[in-house]
Amino acid sequence: MRIDIISVVPALMSSFFEHSICKRAIQSGLVDVQLHDLHDYSSKKFRQVDDYPFGGGAGMVIAIEPLSTCLDHLLAQRSYQDIIFLSPDGQCFNQSMANQLSLSENLLFICGHYKGIDERIREKYVTKEISIGDYVLSGGELAAAVCADAIIRLLPGAIGDESSALTDSFQDGLLAPPVYTRPASFRGMNVPDVLLSGHEKNIEAWRHEQSVKRTQERRPDLLQ
Amino acid sequence: MRIDIISVVPALMSSFFEHSICKRAIQSGLVDVQLHDLHDYSSKKFRQVDDYPFGGGAGMVIAIEPLSTCLDHLLAQRSYQDIIFLSPDGQCFNQSMANQLSLSENLLFICGHYKGIDERIREKYVTKEISIGDYVLSGGELAAAVCADAIIRLLPGAIGDESSALTDSFQDGLLAPPVYTRPASFRGMNVPDVLLSGHEKNIEAWRHEQSVKRTQERRPDLLQ
Repeated sequence: MRIDIISVVPALMSSFFEHSICKRAIQSGLVDVQLHDLHDYSSKKFRQVDDYPFGGGAGMVIAIEPLSTCLDHLLAQRSYQDIIFLSPDGQCFNQSMANQLSLSENLLFICGHYKGIDERIREKYVTKEISIGDYVLSGGELAAAVCADAIIRLLPGAIGDESSALTDSFQDGLLAPPVYTRPASFRGMNVPDVLLSGHEKNIEAWRHEQSVKRTQERRPDLLQ
Repeated sequence: MRIDIISVVPALMSSFFEHSICKRAIQSGLVDVQLHDLHDYSSKKFRQVDDYPFGGGAGMVIAIEPLSTCLDHLLAQRSYQDIIFLSPDGQCFNQSMANQLSLSENLLFICGHYKGIDERIREKYVTKEISIGDYVLSGGELAAAVCADAIIRLLPGAIGDESSALTDSFQDGLLAPPVYTRPASFRGMNVPDVLLSGHEKNIEAWRHEQSVKRTQERRPDLLQ
């Protein structure tokens, strides 16, 4: 899989791709992540990429020219299953979208920053608009990193033990059950007996029961 | 405001706090963000902080001992409005939660990684569990960065022009209207005439109409 990310502050995301699961997935060739600095595609003095919004008001808008130059450059090299713009008014990102996107060969993410990007880019180039949640961030960079992480960890081989991802929250429509590790007793707080019993069937039943109970309490909407 | 973040891979978040709005907010003293490496609180050889889950199964669990040592250490120095655990089964993070948390003096975030943290930590220490969305990430680090960003940009002085945040999506229950910047015409794609009219009242009306229309089309749930 290849993931291209266009941003005005690509360095903001760099440490994320240099650690943990994403780093290992990149090193083992499962995914190639390329960050593109939009300033490199500016034709302006001082590599400017934003300008004041038409109609007035606060905040700067990322201009159509450098962004279309950058997009045309990338699109000339490969075709993308999706050109994704990260925006709070996009479609809500969820696990099933992550599962689906993880099957793509090439994905292109555009990060907004400041007040947003010129609407004409959205109309002409963007095939999917994604929101990672109902809150506003200072840019799409963290949202792109979130999507990339959720997708990359699903690639076969990305997680050491692949069966781990299958027991995550949402994969079966339920929240995950509580987990415990050693010591069994700590300052009077004990691990549930069943988990120490070695009785596989009972453990499985307890975990399912806890998953259902937690989902009922916290996210009844997932059960409907 | 002070934000402490406990993680097994704090370096994963470092570039995020070194750029853009968060960097400026830190430099100007609006917020102090301290990343804590959980390995520093391990009593084990090789600074181990995780162990196999009781009851078996895939994935590692962050152990109670180093985490409670770290938490006790931090809690001895200051009190926190909230001790937040980032988890997909937490309460859904949204703009009103960001607004509310931005009024806190001290916030403490605990990032899970691998399969999760020992449940007893959640029972004993955690006051709020937050999910940034219905998807699974390889750890809570990106989720902590997302929350921190959404909160920090709301601190008075963090954004150059404070009125910009007031016109963001969600702040008035509506999605933001489209934005455009120069040039007014690009490869046959034109900016709506009204935005070039200079007629403030019409521009305001057009923007509100676009906000409502976009919200109706994309997120009718916000209007209910």
